[in-house]
Parts: sequence; C-alpha cells; structure tokens
Amino acid sequence: MQEITYVLPQEIEKRSFEIIGNELAERGIVIPKEEEPITKRVIHTSADFEYARTMCYAPHAIEKAKELLKNGADIVTDTNMALAGINKKALEKLGGTAHCFMADADVAALAKERQVTRATVSMERAAKIEKPVIFAIGNAPTALLSLYEMIQTGSYMPAFIIGVPVGFVNVEVSKELIMETEVPYIINAGRKGGSNIAAAICNALLYSLTREG
Amino acid sequence: MQEITYVLPQEIEKRSFEIIGNELAERGIVIPKEEEPITKRVIHTSADFEYARTMCYAPHAIEKAKELLKNGADIVTDTNMALAGINKKALEKLGGTAHCFMADADVAALAKERQVTRATVSMERAAKIEKPVIFAIGNAPTALLSLYEMIQTGSYMPAFIIGVPVGFVNVEVSKELIMETEVPYIINAGRKGGSNIAAAICNALLYSLTREG
Repeated sequence: MQEITYVLPQEIEKRSFEIIGNELAERGIVIPKEEEPITKRVIHTSADFEYARTMCYAPHAIEKAKELLKNGADIVTDTNMALAGINKKALEKLGGTAHCFMADADVAALAKERQVTRATVSMERAAKIEKPVIFAIGNAPTALLSLYEMIQTGSYMPAFIIGVPVGFVNVEVSKELIMETEVPYIINAGRKGGSNIAAAICNALLYSLTREG
Repeated sequence: MQEITYVLPQEIEKRSFEIIGNELAERGIVIPKEEEPITKRVIHTSADFEYARTMCYAPHAIEKAKELLKNGADIVTDTNMALAGINKKALEKLGGTAHCFMADADVAALAKERQVTRATVSMERAAKIEKPVIFAIGNAPTALLSLYEMIQTGSYMPAFIIGVPVGFVNVEVSKELIMETEVPYIINAGRKGGSNIAAAICNALLYSLTREG
C-alpha cells in the first residue's frame, strides 16, 4: 500500500498540478503554454491523461474567453451539476452570472410537448439573454446541435462554446459540427467530457483572471 | 464526419446502454449481473471503459446498499456537484435525504482553524446524523481518511461508503484503507473517480429501486 502524504489543505492542489506536469513530461506530451492551465485542470478533475491529446482550442480561444469573462459575460450550462461546479463567486466578481434552465418546470413541459430534449429548449431560452453568453455544455449533445442550428440559420450567435458533452449518441458529431462554425470554442474531441469537465474549464478560465500569483 | 442519429429523447439513454453493452462484449469484459447497472452507468457518465476493470464491490455490497436505501437511509456527499447530480426525487420517494456540508460557513471556518480540509469537518458533521448514512465521496480523499479514522477508533460506523474520489494526492491509499475495513463499499480503485461518478453510482442504485421495467 502507498503511504499517506501529509500535505496542508491549501497545498493539495499545487502538489497535484506538479504531479500532472511531471507525468505529462514523462509521456513526452507538450501542451502549449496558454492551454496548460485549462488542460491540466481537466486532467486534475478526471485523472485521465487522454484529455491532453483530445482537447481542441479554436485559434485565440483562450484570449477570447478571458476577454468575454472580463467584460461580465454570463455562463449557461446544460446541467445543474456543472452549475454547482462553477466558481460562481469568481464569476460574479467579474460581473457575470451562471444559469441553468434544465430544471425549470416549463422547460420540461415544452420539451415533452415538442418531443425534443430539455437541453434544446434550454438553449433557446439562453439565446434570449441580452448579453454575451459562454455556453458550457457537459452533458447534452442536443444542446450543441441546437446551438449549431441557430448559428446556421443566423438566428443566434453564441459568444463562445465550451463543448464537452459525454456519451455515445451524437456526442462526437455534435462537437465536430461546432468546430466547423465561426464561434470560438474549447472542445474535447471524441466521446469523453462531462459536467465536471465543463465546470473545470470554466474555473480554469476564471482562476486565470481572479487568482493572484 | 459521423451522421446524426435521430433518437427520441427518452430513447437516448437506452441506446447508450446498448452501445456500452456491445462494446464491453467486444472487449471481452464480463461484468457480474448484479454489478452491471452500476458499472454501466459509470461508463455512461464518463465514456471511459477503464472503469469496467477498476470498480470494486465488497461482498453483497449492492444488496446492502439497496436495503439501506429502501429503509430510508440518507446520502452525504463531499461536493455540491455530487449533491446536484443525485436524483433527489427518487431518494426522497424512499424516505432519504441528500446532504452536503462542504459549503456551510462554519465548516470552512472550523477547517481553517484546525488546518484540516473542509471534507474532514463535513464528515464529522455527517457522523452526527441519527440514521444510517451512505457516504458518496467523489472528490476528497481526506473525507475517506477521516471516515477511516472514525472506523478505526470506533467512534462512528458508516453504514456504507461509495468511495470514488479522483486525483493525485492520497486518493489511492484512501480507497485501499476503506477496503480493509468492515464497512460495505463500492470503490473505484486507482486515481479515477469524481463527483459525477459518485452521483452516477447513487442514481444507478436508486433507479434499480424506483424505476419500473
């Protein structure tokens, strides 16, 4: 059995990131400097080094996301789990609010009536927010497909998409479609992702703006 | 690019589980019948088939967990994300309540004063709940280490532990220690896990008791 490492609470995260850095180096993986805090936080959240090879960033994506957050952009998630995981204090400090419409009673009713997912209805609702929105999608490929349709028809232009739904039905294609648009994105190619990954990406961006040092 | 599969919302989960079943078979992995709904839901949540090889169940663990839930046991999590992910409607139908003490103001203050993690203080608080508690730990190895200490000193006996913290510092050893106790457990060996995994395991257990068919 391994031994227990005695680390002060505030040191655990730092130690973890050092281990991740060392193991990336051992694997010969070099992550562009700018992407490092985000990809490392995703690995920190999943203990899965595969993300180092599958995370995709649109050109200047991180710069654009930070600019949006600095100017008070809102974040819309597709699960209450992702909403719970986002550091809302940091977001609010920058003037943004985090939303999730999935559990709203009328969203469920409308989705049932139209035989679409609640995620689809939630995205339509989010499109009515009258300020720039960063979409953090960790669960529903139908959320990405709905956004794609709005982008294609020109009815709505998301400011930014964090596209990391997880799963087996339409997950990969939904990510590929978003990567074809003009919308800046951070996406994990393939099947993997999740609400925890979506929240980790949001938090990495927020911490780069709000934490000192 | 893959094509979009047109599936009714209520069919997506069923289709996903079929794909998971097929791919497990292709990989030659056979999961014991009883463990299947849980391990498959974990894979559904992570798109990570590694879990099929690392999920560990104490003897009769599933039977015991179901018995506890049927009799109205509470669930205590170590993150608000896990709390958000648990189907609380299903839990309440059985007479249980889900708790997370991590964000309580006095927990943070006490943790800082004692130089321990908030998870440690949260577990001590949970130990005062006067009914059987299932611990669903998806983040903090210190939560498992605190429970282990209580078990060893005989000050408290958790009814059940779902031990799936994720990470790089003390995660593996904390899981190994719990597996040495008499407490029934579902644990994912190794570094992987997460709040989403903890919630998925709780939900798989809940659905086996509350969903029809």
